[in-house]
Amino acid sequence: FPSKLPNVGTTIFSVMSALANQHQAVNLGQGFPDFGCDPKLLDAVAAAMQAGHNQYPPMPGMPQLREAVAAKIAALHGTHYDPHTEITITAGATQAILTAILATVHAGDEVIVLDPCYDSYAPNIELAGGVIVRVPLTPGSFRPDFAKIAAAITPQTRLMIVNTPHNPSATIWTADEMRQLEALLAPTNVLLISDEVYEHMVFDGAQHESAARFPGLAARAFIVSSFGKTYHVTGWKVGTVAAPAALMSEFRKVHQFNVFTVNTPMQVGLATYMHNPAPYLELPAFYQRKRDLFAQGLQQTRLKLLPTTGTYFQCVDISEVTDLNEADFCQWMVQELGVAAIPLSAFYGDGFDQKVVRFCFAKQDATLLAALERLRKL
Amino acid sequence: FPSKLPNVGTTIFSVMSALANQHQAVNLGQGFPDFGCDPKLLDAVAAAMQAGHNQYPPMPGMPQLREAVAAKIAALHGTHYDPHTEITITAGATQAILTAILATVHAGDEVIVLDPCYDSYAPNIELAGGVIVRVPLTPGSFRPDFAKIAAAITPQTRLMIVNTPHNPSATIWTADEMRQLEALLAPTNVLLISDEVYEHMVFDGAQHESAARFPGLAARAFIVSSFGKTYHVTGWKVGTVAAPAALMSEFRKVHQFNVFTVNTPMQVGLATYMHNPAPYLELPAFYQRKRDLFAQGLQQTRLKLLPTTGTYFQCVDISEVTDLNEADFCQWMVQELGVAAIPLSAFYGDGFDQKVVRFCFAKQDATLLAALERLRKL
Ligand SMILES: CSCCC(=O)C(=O)O
Ligand SMILES: CSCCC(=O)C(=O)O
Repeated sequence: FPSKLPNVGTTIFSVMSALANQHQAVNLGQGFPDFGCDPKLLDAVAAAMQAGHNQYPPMPGMPQLREAVAAKIAALHGTHYDPHTEITITAGATQAILTAILATVHAGDEVIVLDPCYDSYAPNIELAGGVIVRVPLTPGSFRPDFAKIAAAITPQTRLMIVNTPHNPSATIWTADEMRQLEALLAPTNVLLISDEVYEHMVFDGAQHESAARFPGLAARAFIVSSFGKTYHVTGWKVGTVAAPAALMSEFRKVHQFNVFTVNTPMQVGLATYMHNPAPYLELPAFYQRKRDLFAQGLQQTRLKLLPTTGTYFQCVDISEVTDLNEADFCQWMVQELGVAAIPLSAFYGDGFDQKVVRFCFAKQDATLLAALERLRKL
Repeated sequence: FPSKLPNVGTTIFSVMSALANQHQAVNLGQGFPDFGCDPKLLDAVAAAMQAGHNQYPPMPGMPQLREAVAAKIAALHGTHYDPHTEITITAGATQAILTAILATVHAGDEVIVLDPCYDSYAPNIELAGGVIVRVPLTPGSFRPDFAKIAAAITPQTRLMIVNTPHNPSATIWTADEMRQLEALLAPTNVLLISDEVYEHMVFDGAQHESAARFPGLAARAFIVSSFGKTYHVTGWKVGTVAAPAALMSEFRKVHQFNVFTVNTPMQVGLATYMHNPAPYLELPAFYQRKRDLFAQGLQQTRLKLLPTTGTYFQCVDISEVTDLNEADFCQWMVQELGVAAIPLSAFYGDGFDQKVVRFCFAKQDATLLAALERLRKL
């Protein structure tokens, strides 16, 4: 039978992790921590299981977790979401994004994505029968180009996907840029997915500008976030979506017939844990230290650093060290040098190659130091 | 914006469970146990978390769990699936079914479902842009009508969905019926989803006839099953799909961009637990005793029992006790009598009403007795 996704292979993150294992490389490719979470969180989940929280939770998620999420958004951004009708717990951020797309995009609708972007967006749009409209971020700076975005909007534009802090470029959107987007979308019916999974990883005193802070964006947005990224448990696959009730009711129609609902003991454990003094407040300092450790080490290599303002990724320019393209260089590096990274070309529709690769620094110091030792051989 | 699923509301299972809670009714509606799982399984998950299994597992699932699933299918049905390329762990059976549909059904493709059927199938097909073709099971007996199925197959038929043991009718397909299906599909390219989530709930010495046992079916089938149903942990949302490599590779393309992967500690815990002498071998006797307890009690009411050969559901004919239609009767029963059930009309595309409602007997004996006491007032 004909493939639904003829141009899609296995996601680069799985491919690189498999190669890293095969070559016993230091894996700075796929974005996940190699350290554990707070043991209190594990205890909270174990206690939830022991207390018998092992059957279906309500379809949109456990009420106490939805309430904790709404309270957090209100505290951080001053925006009120009704936990009963405007917050849903998802099986990770990726499921949230596919579900929002399936719930809103009709066959032939146009969806704007900003290249480079996460590799699930385009196949998600294809699966909904939508038309992918790729607008490049400004080459080099990765800033949004509002003239280009404006030119891409048509009467067929149903949805736009933005992501801040931005994977893979490690930039974050400024308040001024969010306001420009708000103004641009104001006269339209374009819906928004705001992928904010790295919301708590912002550095040098910068502020994460959630779409929740901009009423004209919040009114049209599915705001997606990730417990996995925030609490160092990427394998738990628990995320969350906030959206106005009218959007959320369509989201839930699809959600209930996709995963139906999400792991009960993890939800109960996370809700208990979120009542502790919010551990995510420590994340900027925690990851900034790792960023700086890794960046200082990289300065002793021939790789040129791009700035990291948010996320747990460090991009580097490889043009001084190789004539290979990004993908071949990453392949060479994992095999010969024993360090895995991700080529930025994997995040572009056209495979655009700017000689930049992405490292993940959500790793133990020892892991980062081991990688640096190998990278100094470059 | 226009709804993608204009005819869909909240799934009947959520609606009924919410009503049951609101009226403090005995909830025999939504299918889930009100008793716990084996404490050893909880210990295995807690140990997995403590051992640090909290980051992304491989995209198709933990190897040891895929191996355990393949070994189980080989032991039970004599069919070999390669755990590396032919087994994938899913976030429950519902996610498996949507993913298989999105991976195979192109816009305009026809998909045959047999009414009555689970309420996610039709919206899943709609989301893929497919055309739902409903073929009724024989009224009264719920047997497949192969003349009708044959007449429904066209060159546009991409996929057919079957379900045995069958929800909601509590019937199971015989080996002869599976062979008839095999013969019918032999000259076609029609793919199959075989929803076998109640595989271990078969009674009176009956045998579950998995599609895996019929080479002509297995070669075209996604066989879907559920750890939640089998191990009394519906809230964990872990299921599995087995399919030939060519089908599975398309399945995984979509799976990776839906949920990406599935909760790591639950997968590790389940794999550990499956090495114990298989607890699912005890399930037929365990549930047959509950079926009999509940059925004996129902015989003292004015409800007429339909046979239950598989699943953990008991259907009853309500025509002697009410003039209401099924949905109104269930509404009345949850409010006035304090017992929740599911109207069979919810499983039909046209809301066909045969005066039959479904009870779930996956409940503690005390729960079943409490329900029976209330039902005797009918
Ligand atoms: C779902 S695996 C990829 C993890 C991730 O977010 C990344 O590496 O960009
Ligand atoms: C996903 S909630 C429904 C549970 C179930 O399988 C049923 O009650 O039929």
